[in-house]
Amino acid sequence: MANTFGRLFRVTTWGESHGGGVGVVVDGCPPRLTLSEADVQPDLDRRRPGQSSLVSPRKESDQVQILSGVFEGLTLGTPIAMWVKNEDARSEAYGEMATKFRPSHADYTYQVKYGHRAWPGGGRSSARETVGRVAAGAVAKKLLRERFGVEILACVTQVQDLAAAVDPETVQTSAIEANAVRCPDAAVAEAMIQRIEQRRREGDSVGGLVLGIARGVPPGWGEPVFDRLEADLGKAMLSLPASKGFDIGSGFEGIRLTGREHNDAFRNVGGRVRTVTNRSGGVQGGISNGETLYFRVAFKPVATVMHEQDTVDVNFAETTLKGRGRHDPCVLPRAVPLVEAMTALVLADHALRHHAQCE
Amino acid sequence: MANTFGRLFRVTTWGESHGGGVGVVVDGCPPRLTLSEADVQPDLDRRRPGQSSLVSPRKESDQVQILSGVFEGLTLGTPIAMWVKNEDARSEAYGEMATKFRPSHADYTYQVKYGHRAWPGGGRSSARETVGRVAAGAVAKKLLRERFGVEILACVTQVQDLAAAVDPETVQTSAIEANAVRCPDAAVAEAMIQRIEQRRREGDSVGGLVLGIARGVPPGWGEPVFDRLEADLGKAMLSLPASKGFDIGSGFEGIRLTGREHNDAFRNVGGRVRTVTNRSGGVQGGISNGETLYFRVAFKPVATVMHEQDTVDVNFAETTLKGRGRHDPCVLPRAVPLVEAMTALVLADHALRHHAQCE
Amino acid sequence: MANTFGRLFRVTTWGESHGGGVGVVVDGCPPRLTLSEADVQPDLDRRRPGQSSLVSPRKESDQVQILSGVFEGLTLGTPIAMWVKNEDARSEAYGEMATKFRPSHADYTYQVKYGHRAWPGGGRSSARETVGRVAAGAVAKKLLRERFGVEILACVTQVQDLAAAVDPETVQTSAIEANAVRCPDAAVAEAMIQRIEQRRREGDSVGGLVLGIARGVPPGWGEPVFDRLEADLGKAMLSLPASKGFDIGSGFEGIRLTGREHNDAFRNVGGRVRTVTNRSGGVQGGISNGETLYFRVAFKPVATVMHEQDTVDVNFAETTLKGRGRHDPCVLPRAVPLVEAMTALVLADHALRHHAQCE
Amino acid sequence: MANTFGRLFRVTTWGESHGGGVGVVVDGCPPRLTLSEADVQPDLDRRRPGQSSLVSPRKESDQVQILSGVFEGLTLGTPIAMWVKNEDARSEAYGEMATKFRPSHADYTYQVKYGHRAWPGGGRSSARETVGRVAAGAVAKKLLRERFGVEILACVTQVQDLAAAVDPETVQTSAIEANAVRCPDAAVAEAMIQRIEQRRREGDSVGGLVLGIARGVPPGWGEPVFDRLEADLGKAMLSLPASKGFDIGSGFEGIRLTGREHNDAFRNVGGRVRTVTNRSGGVQGGISNGETLYFRVAFKPVATVMHEQDTVDVNFAETTLKGRGRHDPCVLPRAVPLVEAMTALVLADHALRHHAQCE
Repeated sequence: MANTFGRLFRVTTWGESHGGGVGVVVDGCPPRLTLSEADVQPDLDRRRPGQSSLVSPRKESDQVQILSGVFEGLTLGTPIAMWVKNEDARSEAYGEMATKFRPSHADYTYQVKYGHRAWPGGGRSSARETVGRVAAGAVAKKLLRERFGVEILACVTQVQDLAAAVDPETVQTSAIEANAVRCPDAAVAEAMIQRIEQRRREGDSVGGLVLGIARGVPPGWGEPVFDRLEADLGKAMLSLPASKGFDIGSGFEGIRLTGREHNDAFRNVGGRVRTVTNRSGGVQGGISNGETLYFRVAFKPVATVMHEQDTVDVNFAETTLKGRGRHDPCVLPRAVPLVEAMTALVLADHALRHHAQCE
Repeated sequence: MANTFGRLFRVTTWGESHGGGVGVVVDGCPPRLTLSEADVQPDLDRRRPGQSSLVSPRKESDQVQILSGVFEGLTLGTPIAMWVKNEDARSEAYGEMATKFRPSHADYTYQVKYGHRAWPGGGRSSARETVGRVAAGAVAKKLLRERFGVEILACVTQVQDLAAAVDPETVQTSAIEANAVRCPDAAVAEAMIQRIEQRRREGDSVGGLVLGIARGVPPGWGEPVFDRLEADLGKAMLSLPASKGFDIGSGFEGIRLTGREHNDAFRNVGGRVRTVTNRSGGVQGGISNGETLYFRVAFKPVATVMHEQDTVDVNFAETTLKGRGRHDPCVLPRAVPLVEAMTALVLADHALRHHAQCE
Repeated sequence: MANTFGRLFRVTTWGESHGGGVGVVVDGCPPRLTLSEADVQPDLDRRRPGQSSLVSPRKESDQVQILSGVFEGLTLGTPIAMWVKNEDARSEAYGEMATKFRPSHADYTYQVKYGHRAWPGGGRSSARETVGRVAAGAVAKKLLRERFGVEILACVTQVQDLAAAVDPETVQTSAIEANAVRCPDAAVAEAMIQRIEQRRREGDSVGGLVLGIARGVPPGWGEPVFDRLEADLGKAMLSLPASKGFDIGSGFEGIRLTGREHNDAFRNVGGRVRTVTNRSGGVQGGISNGETLYFRVAFKPVATVMHEQDTVDVNFAETTLKGRGRHDPCVLPRAVPLVEAMTALVLADHALRHHAQCE
Repeated sequence: MANTFGRLFRVTTWGESHGGGVGVVVDGCPPRLTLSEADVQPDLDRRRPGQSSLVSPRKESDQVQILSGVFEGLTLGTPIAMWVKNEDARSEAYGEMATKFRPSHADYTYQVKYGHRAWPGGGRSSARETVGRVAAGAVAKKLLRERFGVEILACVTQVQDLAAAVDPETVQTSAIEANAVRCPDAAVAEAMIQRIEQRRREGDSVGGLVLGIARGVPPGWGEPVFDRLEADLGKAMLSLPASKGFDIGSGFEGIRLTGREHNDAFRNVGGRVRTVTNRSGGVQGGISNGETLYFRVAFKPVATVMHEQDTVDVNFAETTLKGRGRHDPCVLPRAVPLVEAMTALVLADHALRHHAQCE
């Protein structure tokens, strides 16, 4: 009962790594938005494994089909169902997974929760589950861009200790997409790529940070008290596989400042209320203040490594397990479209919520 | 429409800083739990301003009344309504707030969102709103303790750069409650207190970290994909006033490790599956794995400072504003019961959800 | 977890017959609606027992207090909490209820469900629970009237076999409120009153029909497929104590007609699409078509009668029970404001929902 | 945002009459239930047009595919996605529907609500939408039967004025399925069939009643106050296309009785609390009392008739429209599996809800 996200712009995902496919139903999208597969496919391609040597070599064409909710090129206001078939179902590659729990994966917890699990490819806990989110996020991004003038983007800012300085106000998609690691700082990106390749050779993996950004959000979105914008964004990001942390604006760094140092003074800029600094990250009291939203998401290093590790089997007997087959040493570049998608889902929902009650 | 939290253990809060009071309705609590005001009042007392020289001198007795849902000392299964009257309504102390927006507060965003706001004391955006959460959290804590054997606690681990090392497995409430700053490391606590007193004298304020802990959570709580335990905990914490960040387990620190270094090996300990390390923070794939849950919450420095700051008024004209009256330089000790309460609300909800579907 | 109604205009009620009182939290009401206790009290007075010789002599002044959500006479957009104290708590009059289940009441089902129940006055199953609904409904009615031009009313149309013919298009509140039974047909009303008085003398009770009406609903409210307007109205009405049936438009009578006879032809009336007949009851495909909404609600005869009846006690031993004390032979006149309130809650919710997605 | 039904056993449907198909996602189904397409197909076949001369000749094989949520024949606890392709997409047959609103259909209301509609076949308002409900209902029926011992069935009891007397306690599926009209009284069924054939020859249509039954529901399901069992059942039934009324137990007939006549006396039967009569219809105070649930659903006559009728076109100009092509004079036999499906969805949801809070 936890596969639906959002209150008014509602997204329900389904599907396992192996099986009939993965998909999503988007309910509550306003009518008369132009929409076709061509609006959705590019983000799926960005999410797809096998884009570069950095990411998982799993080969899936991931062609999306829109099954409902669109007629003559326009959304109907009724549910938009989208489906991507599973193609690369080599479950034999995962044979050992049937009986052993991979460390720091979800195998054990799914088994103990449900008493039954789709072990091939990790089943529902596979990153493949995020296909539906990205497809729905593409619809939300389009709605936000065309109806509200909101631009959403994300990029990699850190791999292990290699950190790039990125300005959320000015960074451009072209710089982000210019390299395989999706870090807009070309020099740091190069170092990141070498680090990732090194870890791949070592059969090991890395983690890092993704920066999420929303520009052009009008003041007033978000709601006190439980559904603050940062609370819903935080939940969205922490629902992504492998994410372990979220902060917004000054975040964990801001705790070193005093209140005088940290506060964002208000100014009147051309008749509009602006803040001189943006340590708030575009949100005050849970509600957008018209400044750029920016936040960081921490992703742990990928759990699958090509080394023997201690674990237990389904009978709780101690054993070891070594990752085999495809090795994806860094999830970060593929997490970029995920962060964008989840950001879009949160903002589309709050755009409609604000409109419903206050406009 | 955002004042309800939870799916099965549902909490709805209401109330402004000034007005008839603040309260909460708890819907979905199982029947036949022993409950009286005496179970709720202690946490409200811990949240209350004026407990020590460190916190807001606002004087409220904050006596809770249970208005419904309990009969002959036992919960009925019907909604538990709890109410705390407002007593200290000195709205004159806030007069300037009627026309000027306090920097890094919610005055501007509420005004622009709703076109009308309860300016005295910050209205709904006041920390006073959290009274209802703490009252509901006390019920959830009792349910978790008595029915599921789960223990919830929290403590302050950092004030600005002053950091304490706290072991989530062993820290005791007695050590936490032994000093005014609620940091279990006595030496660091003393330094924190001096720092806070210094900031008070300077008319300034501080932020820091609170560590949240849940011990005894059985494996299996939490749900893929959107309502992962860490996602719901993250949302809960980021819905607290002044919070700017959340991480679980290794969190933002874990990104520096490789996968081999980071993974938690499984072992069989006395017939039970355990992990050798706990970088996962007790959650894998969004579901508890039987280890201790621990997470950090970053709180920004208090926005109210006793200095002139640049701002604008309700007509967007530039002006300055200086905090007056009560000065609360550090929210952290009072945030401790809030973090506990929200943790309890999340876990009580997931306890019932797991039971509903899987047991 | 079932004490909240609505999706955007959300109402949470609480309270038992005896205890601290009954109340409601209204979440999602738009800001800047003028509101005071004076807007709510009249409907509570209409619901109140003891208005006439026809209804329960329970004496409660039922004075409502608005505890939050309103500032300087205008709604804030934050939760509106309203509270009515219990005054007439003569639980001794119900002593036998502690150990015996009243036939066709909720005593047995509450006991078996929760294992514990507030037996005085029926606890949560008492009609007193509806106080919160009526208070919330008064807010919704005001919102609908002032912001959307929608008028809501209800009246009694049948008591046992005594039926009045009422035209939903033209009936006026003044005619409805002109007599104690709230039936706008004066002659039938007089017969109804005599019937009710007769049943009272016999220690017996009656049931009947209430007609609910909403005029001025614009076309477009309601949503396919599960939240059709008639589905949400039906749920609302069937959630009222003692209601056993609901139909809309031609309803149960319409099944005798053929399709040709039953269909509502469309015409253009002054540039607006109208139907020549209104057997649809103002709803087609779950969505309002601009015609008057009207529907019937069937209420069973009051279960409390002043005669010995067979029943069992809490140990399931067979026994008898005779109603004592206050006798309320007919719930219908007091159900009129309830039907209005629930109609208003459904329509206010759908007004906001339609606005959110489609406008 | 209205295409999801249920709180714990959650069903989301999607799809239009013409397009990629119709489908459903079932979220919250307990794990380890045996499930395959063979459990779902029979009810889809019962719903399908073209089963007999009585119903729509639309030819669809309606083969269901389970795309997710089942592994090795057992449910996983994750979302069960089911899909039925559209095959018979002869949109040319409906050409006139592009520009004219069919009387008493949803064409006009969809157009005015969304400003855009899938006119072929009625789009989302087509009865084809119910495929997803029936598929989900088959899963719910299986869960209820295997885990809770609950049996659900439905039958036709009235066509126009032709009424059958059916005993909810004893009627058997074999008698219901013995004839094309699904009325267990063979003699009345024969008259119904002749009536329907006559209406078909006249190019006209009929409506009538379906009786819904659930046997073996344990006491305690259902919740005060808004989610009473009868309220959720009522909503479920009134969300079905063409339904105009719902009553439970004595329903609209019970209003003629007095309280003494109507009350269901309690007795101890073999240690179990039973009622002597069952005018309550198995529900008291919104909660099941252990007796058989039974209720009636009124369906209006089918709106599509083979005669010229007055209507307007999309420019609101007055015109006429005559039904063409396939003629389905009676929806009742095909409504039987729909009523069963929606009953199962309500009861499965409440079974889990009761378990979550009270067991």
